[in-house]
This record gives sequence, C-alpha cells and structure tokens, in this order.
Amino acid sequence: MARIRFHQNLDDLKEKLLVMAGMAEQSIQRAVEAYRVRDVSICDLVDRGEMAINRLEREIDQMALDLLAMEQPMAIDLRFILSVIKINADVERVGDSARAISDRVRELQAFPVAELPIDIPRIANLASGMVRKALQAFIEGDAEMAESVLSMDDGVDKMNGAAHYALLNLMKKEPELAPQALNALMISRALERVADHATNIAEDVIFWVRAADVRHHMGAAATSGNNNQPVAGSQ
Amino acid sequence: MARIRFHQNLDDLKEKLLVMAGMAEQSIQRAVEAYRVRDVSICDLVDRGEMAINRLEREIDQMALDLLAMEQPMAIDLRFILSVIKINADVERVGDSARAISDRVRELQAFPVAELPIDIPRIANLASGMVRKALQAFIEGDAEMAESVLSMDDGVDKMNGAAHYALLNLMKKEPELAPQALNALMISRALERVADHATNIAEDVIFWVRAADVRHHMGAAATSGNNNQPVAGSQ
Repeated sequence: MARIRFHQNLDDLKEKLLVMAGMAEQSIQRAVEAYRVRDVSICDLVDRGEMAINRLEREIDQMALDLLAMEQPMAIDLRFILSVIKINADVERVGDSARAISDRVRELQAFPVAELPIDIPRIANLASGMVRKALQAFIEGDAEMAESVLSMDDGVDKMNGAAHYALLNLMKKEPELAPQALNALMISRALERVADHATNIAEDVIFWVRAADVRHHMGAAATSGNNNQPVAGSQ
Repeated sequence: MARIRFHQNLDDLKEKLLVMAGMAEQSIQRAVEAYRVRDVSICDLVDRGEMAINRLEREIDQMALDLLAMEQPMAIDLRFILSVIKINADVERVGDSARAISDRVRELQAFPVAELPIDIPRIANLASGMVRKALQAFIEGDAEMAESVLSMDDGVDKMNGAAHYALLNLMKKEPELAPQALNALMISRALERVADHATNIAEDVIFWVRAADVRHHMGAAATSGNNNQPVAGSQ
C-alpha cells in the first residue's frame, strides 16, 4: 500500500517537473517574441512566469527530499529522484535566461530598431528544441535520445559564433548601432546558456537514468575505474 | 561500526568537494592572470584543470549516490548529501567559466593590447571571494554566512553594469577597439556567472543545511504552506 503511494508520489514529482519545464520553454518563446515585436507587455508575462518557476523549483526539491526521507527508495527510484533534483536546477535556470532576455528587450526600447545580422528566433527554436528533447529523453528514460541532444549543442554554438563575428563587424563599421548589436549578442548568449542547460539535462539523463556517465563528452568507455559500477542493490 | 564508516565516508565526500572547489577557484585566478599578462601558457593550465574538475564532479556524484544507496541516512545526513550533489554541479560550472575566460584570452592574442575601462582582476577577486565564502558557509553549516554571500552579488552586478556601459561607449567612440572591448565584456560576463554560481551555492546551503528556503531572495518567512516543515525523522 505504502509502495503504491510512493510510486504515485514519484509520478506527481515527474508531472510537476514537466509542468515547470513547459513553463520555462514558454518563457523563452515569449521573451523572444517580445524581442521580435518589441512588446514590453510580453516581458511582464516572462517576469511573472519566472517567479512561478522559482516557486515550483522549491516545491519539487521539497517533494524529492520528503520522498527520500520517508521511504527507502530502491536504487532505480533513488537515481530517478536524484535526477529530478539535478534537472530541476537546470530548468529553473532556463527560466532565468528567459528573464535575462526580457531585461534586454526592455533596455532596447531606448534605441531605434536596427536591422541586425542575427536570427534570434532561429537560435531560440534550436535551443528550446534541445530543452524539449532532453525532457522527453528523461520521461522516456531514453539515453540515446539524450545523446542526440548533446550533438545539437554544436549547432547552437556555431550559429552563435557566426552571429558574434557578424555583429562585431557591424559594430566596427557602424558604431552608432553598437548598443543594439551588443544587446542582440547578449540575447544570443542567453540562448546559448539555454542550450547548455539542455545539454546538462541530457547528461544527467544519461548518468542518472542509464548509470553510465557521458558527461563532458567522454563516452562511457572512457570513464575510469570502479566509479561507474552499478549501484549496490541495483538490478 | 557501519555508522562510523558512514560518517568517515561523509567526511571524504566533503573533503573531495572542497578539493574540487579549491581547484575551481584557482582556475579562475589563473584565467584572469592569463588575461592580465596575456600568457597563453597559463590557459593550458586552466584547460587541464577543467578536465580534472570534471573528473572530480563525476566521482563526487557517484560517491553521493553510493552513500544514499547503501545506507539509510538520517534526515540531517540526507540533506547534507543532497546539498553536496547540488553544490557539486555549481562548482563544476565555475570551472567551465574559467575555461570560457581562457578561450577569450586565446582569441585576444590576435589583437593589440588596448587600455580598457574595466578592472577584470577586481571583479574576479569579488566573484572568487563569493565562491570561497559560500563554500566556507557550507563547511561550517553557517546559514548567516551564506546570506552574506547573497548580498555580495549586487556588488558584482554593479561593477559589471558599469563596465558594460563604459565599454559600450568606448566601442562607439573607437570602433577599432570593438574586438578587445567585446572580449573584455565577455570575460566580465563569465565572472558574473561565477558570482551567480556562488549565489546558488549559498542558497543551497541555506535551503539544505538550514531546512528553510531563501532561494530567490524570498526569505524564510515568505515561503508558503507546509513545504518548509522539517523533514520526517529530523531532530
């Protein structure tokens, strides 16, 4: 009976994390929409969303802690709960990145709209897609899908690198556009951070769910010694 | 007897985290020294240090997981182990920031040295000091000390804000210095992220060690409902 309740609680925990991840993803989309149409009223939504995400982060940590304290989870459930705690922190920081973009959009209001050599919505779609896929991999416990997220990160880095170079050249040629160019660059950096969080989540899925550590792109075969033995009691 | 060994293992876990934190702090100092004297050979040390930090992160996570799997820790030990897992992730990312600075220093080699209106070593000292203090608060389980780290974050943000403004003006007036100015700005952003990680660590110390959640600067009194009751079984 207690076991059934325990698994119900695990499902609730997962559900709550997914709700929060959906909110974080929506916040990124909204922040980028605010940038695209220069609408500060959308920034207000992002800021309120960030506070709601922060509340959810605390609730999830507390739920996870209570589950660990009240039951003695089996190894597989233990790994699941620890992965929730890790992923929770990264999802919250996706919300922070949305907030950072929203702050930049507010600053931009002081400057005329400029045509810039950077496709922010495209970078955002790629970064958001990574977060979505990393969470999907978590739900399905699919380490292969998580690995595909790692390879997407290079795409975001390349787009950002190209944007960095193009915006730097623009600043040299048209220094009066420096504020807008720098602002767009900071937004693209915030999106790069979103992609980094998606990468962290994917690495956690692989480490915690699959019991092998491919963090830092070393591959399971390259990890050393007895640190990657299955946990005592694991099936 | 098993209990004594368990507590010995907890001490080992703490010791390992502190070694890693020391390495991360040293990496930041080295990266900034590389910037200051434009010495790429120091960048090599930073890059090797980052790999060592990444290895330690995995070892610490595995140790924490094994401790949770093999024993049924009491609530206070459970909180401690979970705080190690959280803090571990932030310390590893301090190492990433050092690496990001080191990458920037390499790029800077292509450009002549420019006098810039930003005091990178001073921002670095403040950010490193925050990391050191947050870890100290963790060792001593001192939530008040952790709170003092939160208030230091504003100082870093202010210095960064002022540097951002000054460098933007420089780019407008002397566009040929845009590469160096932008590079310095990115380094100051990486240091801002170090300060953010110190803030995260301090918040974790308060939440996990003190069993009250002041994350997102809400204060213990502002948290809601029964989420902040002591964990079942806590003394």
